[in-house]
Amino acid sequence: MPVLRVDLDKRGYPIHIGPGLLDRLGPFLEETFPAGTRVLVVGDETTLGLFGERAGQSLEGSGFPASFFPVPRGEEAKDMGQVARVAQGAAEFGLDRDGLLVALGGGAVGDLTGFCAASYMRGVSLVQVPTTLLAQVDSSVGGKVAVNLPGGKNLLGFFHQPRLVVMDTEVLEHLPGREFRSGVMEIIKYAVLGDPRLFALLEEKMGPGGGLPREVREEIILASCRMKAAVVLRDEEEAGPRMVLNLGHTLGHALERETGYGYYRHGEAVGAGMV
Amino acid sequence: MPVLRVDLDKRGYPIHIGPGLLDRLGPFLEETFPAGTRVLVVGDETTLGLFGERAGQSLEGSGFPASFFPVPRGEEAKDMGQVARVAQGAAEFGLDRDGLLVALGGGAVGDLTGFCAASYMRGVSLVQVPTTLLAQVDSSVGGKVAVNLPGGKNLLGFFHQPRLVVMDTEVLEHLPGREFRSGVMEIIKYAVLGDPRLFALLEEKMGPGGGLPREVREEIILASCRMKAAVVLRDEEEAGPRMVLNLGHTLGHALERETGYGYYRHGEAVGAGMV
Repeated sequence: MPVLRVDLDKRGYPIHIGPGLLDRLGPFLEETFPAGTRVLVVGDETTLGLFGERAGQSLEGSGFPASFFPVPRGEEAKDMGQVARVAQGAAEFGLDRDGLLVALGGGAVGDLTGFCAASYMRGVSLVQVPTTLLAQVDSSVGGKVAVNLPGGKNLLGFFHQPRLVVMDTEVLEHLPGREFRSGVMEIIKYAVLGDPRLFALLEEKMGPGGGLPREVREEIILASCRMKAAVVLRDEEEAGPRMVLNLGHTLGHALERETGYGYYRHGEAVGAGMV
Repeated sequence: MPVLRVDLDKRGYPIHIGPGLLDRLGPFLEETFPAGTRVLVVGDETTLGLFGERAGQSLEGSGFPASFFPVPRGEEAKDMGQVARVAQGAAEFGLDRDGLLVALGGGAVGDLTGFCAASYMRGVSLVQVPTTLLAQVDSSVGGKVAVNLPGGKNLLGFFHQPRLVVMDTEVLEHLPGREFRSGVMEIIKYAVLGDPRLFALLEEKMGPGGGLPREVREEIILASCRMKAAVVLRDEEEAGPRMVLNLGHTLGHALERETGYGYYRHGEAVGAGMV
């Protein structure tokens, strides 16, 4: 099973990619955290409903007391009120500075949970378990976390690297086609930006409508994460090279804003912004 | 005029201490920030009323466009709603990633403003201009910033070092005696913890009721900041040695909590906790 290491000095972390990894969440955590570490799993109704029980069983099986905290779906989660709710929930669960927040969901859940992890008791550990293709190849890698304010998307945020990322490629089976294609657009972006091998692989294997056959899925996700990680490594806080990842995003963001967030999926807008 | 340097690698910063330094805020900033940098000055009604105009004149005189943002007095400022307000205000003022937040006030204003600076656009520069003795010798040095939640004091926060600290010792003339003594208790704590020279100086010079004569005031504040900075240097994120600064704080916090925050000044509670 592929493991990619993001080498940020002492804050480096592994990214595990493969089918069925949700059931190995507990054992993966054992490599980094002592048994008994309290884990608050944050997700939305959909992700907690689909994957919460399996994640919980794996955590409990490894001796991690786990609690689940539901937040709204999509961008509504990225709100200061939700930060306060999650922090209260963490405090009531008895999470201390040695505790851990797990983001089980798409990019919005990852952003909110990451914001909470960055600030709760001045910073606790974060594990990303991205459940959308877009979150797997983009937002769960690199440490950018944020919430929105009326004055701007992602107006408050941090760079807070996860301790571990676990990408179960089977959970993508549950994604609506349009969500899946939104991730594919980001993958195409990486291929265009600097991975001719990935580009060739996509040309050869991508199905009509952006389908990625199972037998190359891990390879494609790995290549995308490697590219994202390489850029992040060179420029953790986005002064220079990381800007290249904004390809398609300036126009894409404008498109999302003008049509009201939610009309276009993020990847669709980025795809439109590239052409 | 004493300048103390806190040497945290590339995040090191100077602390300027002396009478009348408020009028030199602009020139101090010129050493670090290019002219034209937008500055949002956050303070409460009292500090903006007493010192806002002088700070503003100094900033404008050095070519820094400045805007002032009032927040509630005391602990009420340390609230997520206030973070959102300040961030909105910063966005409306056109503050971007190169912008600067100045905390003009006591510990609560410093904590709130620091939280905003740590998170606004994933982090902008912070300058602390502490206007109470307690903030000068304690909270403005070391980078700890936080807001409160119903579930706990300082439950959300960060380590976000300032770029510069400016301590005008004349502004302390405006402090009520009880506020002043609250700072003196922290100074006594430093003396007890490891500065026999400071202890002797206090024994010799401290007036009845905790008065600090003008001619030794800078020296005493400098010694206190040096001690705080030395501990912070050894242990920026509070895993070990920084814990010594909690002398008197465990009991002190309990005392504050049980009597309802606000009944005792923080330094009074710490003083009671030490004995």
